[in-house]
Amino acid sequence: MYKHRFENDYAELAHPRIIEALGRLGTHQYAGYSQDRICQEAVAVIRETIKRPNAGVHFVAGGTQANLVGLGWLLSSIGAVIAADTGHINVYEAGAVEATGHKVCAVPSSDGKLEPQSLHELMEVHQQEELVTPEVIFLSQSTELGNIYRKSEIERIREFCNHWNLLLYIDGARIGSAITSDVSDFGMADIGELADAFFIGGTKNGALFGEALVMVNPELDRGFRSAIRQRGALLAKGYAVGAQFHELFKDGLYFGLAEHANTMARRLSEGLDTLGYTFWQDCETNQIFPLLSNQLIARIQNDYAFHIWEKYDEDHSIVRLVTSGATPSEKVDEFLVDLAEADT
Amino acid sequence: MYKHRFENDYAELAHPRIIEALGRLGTHQYAGYSQDRICQEAVAVIRETIKRPNAGVHFVAGGTQANLVGLGWLLSSIGAVIAADTGHINVYEAGAVEATGHKVCAVPSSDGKLEPQSLHELMEVHQQEELVTPEVIFLSQSTELGNIYRKSEIERIREFCNHWNLLLYIDGARIGSAITSDVSDFGMADIGELADAFFIGGTKNGALFGEALVMVNPELDRGFRSAIRQRGALLAKGYAVGAQFHELFKDGLYFGLAEHANTMARRLSEGLDTLGYTFWQDCETNQIFPLLSNQLIARIQNDYAFHIWEKYDEDHSIVRLVTSGATPSEKVDEFLVDLAEADT
Amino acid sequence: MYKHRFENDYAELAHPRIIEALGRLGTHQYAGYSQDRICQEAVAVIRETIKRPNAGVHFVAGGTQANLVGLGWLLSSIGAVIAADTGHINVYEAGAVEATGHKVCAVPSSDGKLEPQSLHELMEVHQQEELVTPEVIFLSQSTELGNIYRKSEIERIREFCNHWNLLLYIDGARIGSAITSDVSDFGMADIGELADAFFIGGTKNGALFGEALVMVNPELDRGFRSAIRQRGALLAKGYAVGAQFHELFKDGLYFGLAEHANTMARRLSEGLDTLGYTFWQDCETNQIFPLLSNQLIARIQNDYAFHIWEKYDEDHSIVRLVTSGATPSEKVDEFLVDLAEADT
Amino acid sequence: MYKHRFENDYAELAHPRIIEALGRLGTHQYAGYSQDRICQEAVAVIRETIKRPNAGVHFVAGGTQANLVGLGWLLSSIGAVIAADTGHINVYEAGAVEATGHKVCAVPSSDGKLEPQSLHELMEVHQQEELVTPEVIFLSQSTELGNIYRKSEIERIREFCNHWNLLLYIDGARIGSAITSDVSDFGMADIGELADAFFIGGTKNGALFGEALVMVNPELDRGFRSAIRQRGALLAKGYAVGAQFHELFKDGLYFGLAEHANTMARRLSEGLDTLGYTFWQDCETNQIFPLLSNQLIARIQNDYAFHIWEKYDEDHSIVRLVTSGATPSEKVDEFLVDLAEADT
Repeated sequence: MYKHRFENDYAELAHPRIIEALGRLGTHQYAGYSQDRICQEAVAVIRETIKRPNAGVHFVAGGTQANLVGLGWLLSSIGAVIAADTGHINVYEAGAVEATGHKVCAVPSSDGKLEPQSLHELMEVHQQEELVTPEVIFLSQSTELGNIYRKSEIERIREFCNHWNLLLYIDGARIGSAITSDVSDFGMADIGELADAFFIGGTKNGALFGEALVMVNPELDRGFRSAIRQRGALLAKGYAVGAQFHELFKDGLYFGLAEHANTMARRLSEGLDTLGYTFWQDCETNQIFPLLSNQLIARIQNDYAFHIWEKYDEDHSIVRLVTSGATPSEKVDEFLVDLAEADT
Repeated sequence: MYKHRFENDYAELAHPRIIEALGRLGTHQYAGYSQDRICQEAVAVIRETIKRPNAGVHFVAGGTQANLVGLGWLLSSIGAVIAADTGHINVYEAGAVEATGHKVCAVPSSDGKLEPQSLHELMEVHQQEELVTPEVIFLSQSTELGNIYRKSEIERIREFCNHWNLLLYIDGARIGSAITSDVSDFGMADIGELADAFFIGGTKNGALFGEALVMVNPELDRGFRSAIRQRGALLAKGYAVGAQFHELFKDGLYFGLAEHANTMARRLSEGLDTLGYTFWQDCETNQIFPLLSNQLIARIQNDYAFHIWEKYDEDHSIVRLVTSGATPSEKVDEFLVDLAEADT
Repeated sequence: MYKHRFENDYAELAHPRIIEALGRLGTHQYAGYSQDRICQEAVAVIRETIKRPNAGVHFVAGGTQANLVGLGWLLSSIGAVIAADTGHINVYEAGAVEATGHKVCAVPSSDGKLEPQSLHELMEVHQQEELVTPEVIFLSQSTELGNIYRKSEIERIREFCNHWNLLLYIDGARIGSAITSDVSDFGMADIGELADAFFIGGTKNGALFGEALVMVNPELDRGFRSAIRQRGALLAKGYAVGAQFHELFKDGLYFGLAEHANTMARRLSEGLDTLGYTFWQDCETNQIFPLLSNQLIARIQNDYAFHIWEKYDEDHSIVRLVTSGATPSEKVDEFLVDLAEADT
Repeated sequence: MYKHRFENDYAELAHPRIIEALGRLGTHQYAGYSQDRICQEAVAVIRETIKRPNAGVHFVAGGTQANLVGLGWLLSSIGAVIAADTGHINVYEAGAVEATGHKVCAVPSSDGKLEPQSLHELMEVHQQEELVTPEVIFLSQSTELGNIYRKSEIERIREFCNHWNLLLYIDGARIGSAITSDVSDFGMADIGELADAFFIGGTKNGALFGEALVMVNPELDRGFRSAIRQRGALLAKGYAVGAQFHELFKDGLYFGLAEHANTMARRLSEGLDTLGYTFWQDCETNQIFPLLSNQLIARIQNDYAFHIWEKYDEDHSIVRLVTSGATPSEKVDEFLVDLAEADT
């Protein structure tokens, strides 16, 4: 039994208001497949949040599902998607995008972000007919390494997409943590303006389950419901997700939870910094990557759950610590105390 | 605003005990991807229910997803699945199985059930090398037409599978209604004994969402989690479904709800019978199919939601009425009164 | 060792002029992947034949390949193709179209041809969101049962496509036999005018191997070469097929061979008719389907190869006899004599 | 009009003996789909060549097709294939393997060959459940960079496969050039012993078209014909390829042609070396990669066709020159003279 889990941001079921909101649905009856009044309200509040009154907004169960449904839809039968080599679709989805028939063209990245020069080189090379045809760029905001793109960086990728006639898809499993980061200049209206499609993650930020998958342009949205159903992602009780997103977005709960997660991560990283530990990546959101000695890891890993990301050198490893909207500050402090004690 | 919806069995969110069970999880932390204690308990109670202590049991979000994940896993790259032409995978899933690369070989059925003679003819013809290779038989219990297979019928199909070296997959989206039907001689231990794989539907019988997908033989289960993830069906918060299935199966709530749905359908069908209406199919579970005049349909369809299944003759249509574990008997009675009144 | 094979129209390698044409290429060097001068000439003569100066014309190795490449290209990720239940893609291609992720919606046909009423009913039903989305109609000219569509029939299907926003794809594996049939009023310019895409079969009409796959509209052709390569159908030595098609079409060899095949089939069917046999289908092209007693079949099947299509009644079977551009009339006559002798 | 093409090894149609062999088939009739006597003879001679009397041997039209059919068959629905980042399937096949639903896991390679350390690291990392499941290793012999594996190198990869329970697939599009290389210690019996599946390239070594795709283990071969058909790769006139492979292998023509190609490449590389040019890769087979100045390239590229592989530095590029079984030594010498002249 762990004192606390810092291994991910989906270890707690949901914010209490989410359970209450579901409870309020009672035994009322709703139309199936997201064609109910509650989903309509949730769609409206999301459209308002992203400043896209005509966007297609759909509710699905999870992030890998959102990615495979969304990318499988955006790509033509010959199309490939470009992603950072650290990108979720390239690593952690067990080949989900390829299982829909499409190659992921991975470009090297040192910090989880796509670099303009790498993108440029990839597109230049792919003008050869033998090579697969890139059609979509995938990026995660925040990234899998806890960093965030600044607004100007995504604008530059948008211009790149325009130049090469590519679509831009953003994995927003942790868009909340990105937008509420202390160093962020990127907002929900920006994602609505710059991306062609994206999803807003519920699972990792307060929801019981569910993601809101958005096709910004209504033209891209036409027929998309069939694709969602075909991939097994159209929920019979869509209103069960709609109600959660309505609750999360109607008054800012979503961003409050993300801010709390970031604050806890900051408390953790500052504490670690004070204790003299260094970090693999900048600490910008709710995922931080300190370097710990293997000896220290061995001493604390029975009390705390966390992910050993990869070997750093013979004696040290990169560790991932993740906070959530439900992380108590006491647990952060307790961890820091226990760590300091174990490291003596 | 309808007086009542008889259009499906997923119009109400969940049984109150389900919401309570979720609420009890509070802000405790659990391991991700169904590798937590709650899922273990839920798996244990399901294994006990089907009398298969070694079966692989997995929680996914919905029925089409369960089918495409399960069948996509059971079929080799050249394999096809045989289904009744009325089968869910052949009609209502927008080509989901085909999107995983496999043909659905549809055989004609008059009552939603697979008929031994049709199966035999199909297999005889498919010995030709040009034709696709059937590897799995798919059936739904109860069927899409509200009927149920008797135990001996499934035993015969099992023998057929053994003879032709086919696997048997059962769509149990409504397995509760099948097992608690007045005319049923088929139980949960029978599905565990006769099928190679199946799913137990939660969405249509009391759960907020979720299905339990079972690989009966541990050999078939090896590696299956990768397939679930690859199709976007491995839920980060698997415990959110595990908790529901534990609640549904720990003391028979699941079967109680199904029985109620069946009782309400019986009340409805007997009432319709008394009023002089006839039926397209036998009324065996919670879906019934009366024949109503188009005129009558026009008069009641603003007050009651139901599905017009198909044209019967120039003046009549087949209508589908579905009850659920939450259907109030008063609504059934009110509907019968309103119908009688409208039909004068 | 058979006296003769009537089992298909690809039992002889190629017309001698084809081998000569290949021989003339000698050890000259050509650009790869159909970007050579010979392919250009072949494309030009085919464009001229179909009266479509801007059509995309591509050379692939075989018919199933042409179908899966062509249909996989025309269909969006959610699309399905409609075919007669007797259609080649629905029966004889081992699930090739489904393996590209698309459902074949089969409509019943008594003579191998699509019937307007069945098409209409299918499209009406498929307006329901749960059902797969038809996007293309597939037909074979001549059909798998040896019949041909009259021009007006294909015009009606074209109008149907226009009405429902469908594309029309024609499998022309035996387009030569269709066009040179005694009862035909359909020509190569008609296929160029009425279809969106089609292939002209070489394998079954004089070529060593190869089919010409045509995207009539240049818009549909954009990017198609990538799809051909992706399916493994872009031949390194495209000129090996181009040279054959140039030879076949430059002076009408293609149609001469088809006419010969039809003439031989007519000779055969008239002979059989004289002997008193009846037919399952009208004899319109180079495939004929007499009804023979099982006893008679048993007596002749060691001397002649042919396909037993299906059981007709307890004592009779439908037999398929196929002639080709290389069938000697003596073999037809010999078969008729042997048959008459065996049937006494 | 080029003086000569050094851009690939499929610019000449076929060796004259191949055309003669096809001509000898005349108008005899053969069974379809490779079930004829000629294919049987060709299969027998290939089995003899690889010392595998029970291997499954199949004839398909091209190399990308062989790869996608073979790998699509060997991989389970969750499986991925490991290849060098320079591997044909990872670069030049327009996403063909991914279009069958499988990820290509690319490992870095400096010389086109798989390196044991990279393989080891990849497998270690892929033990995480989130990552795709590697099931097959793909390598090309000779490689895409003109190098060859020594026997001991492939033996080590075989052991690696055994250790990790992987299958080994070899792309032998240029197996002839590999085996007849001056530096080779690897023979046809070795490929039969060490690989689980492979193909022997005809297109790039004397055939008009066609590859022989081999499943070494009869267990792996069971059902494989259905997969070949399903991918559109089962040729109606299989005997057209069978006859070519019989001709190529019955008396060593295949190896004679490969040896000639290698000899011409050696003459070319030695000539370039004498002229003072250096090379990007060792010259081991019929593909060589000299470094030429961009200025020089500009001067000769109207007279000679070749592939500019990639930029080397500001002023130089890597060029690929390919010879074939039909390359005249005079053309090699003429090129060297012209090059020397242009470079002054």
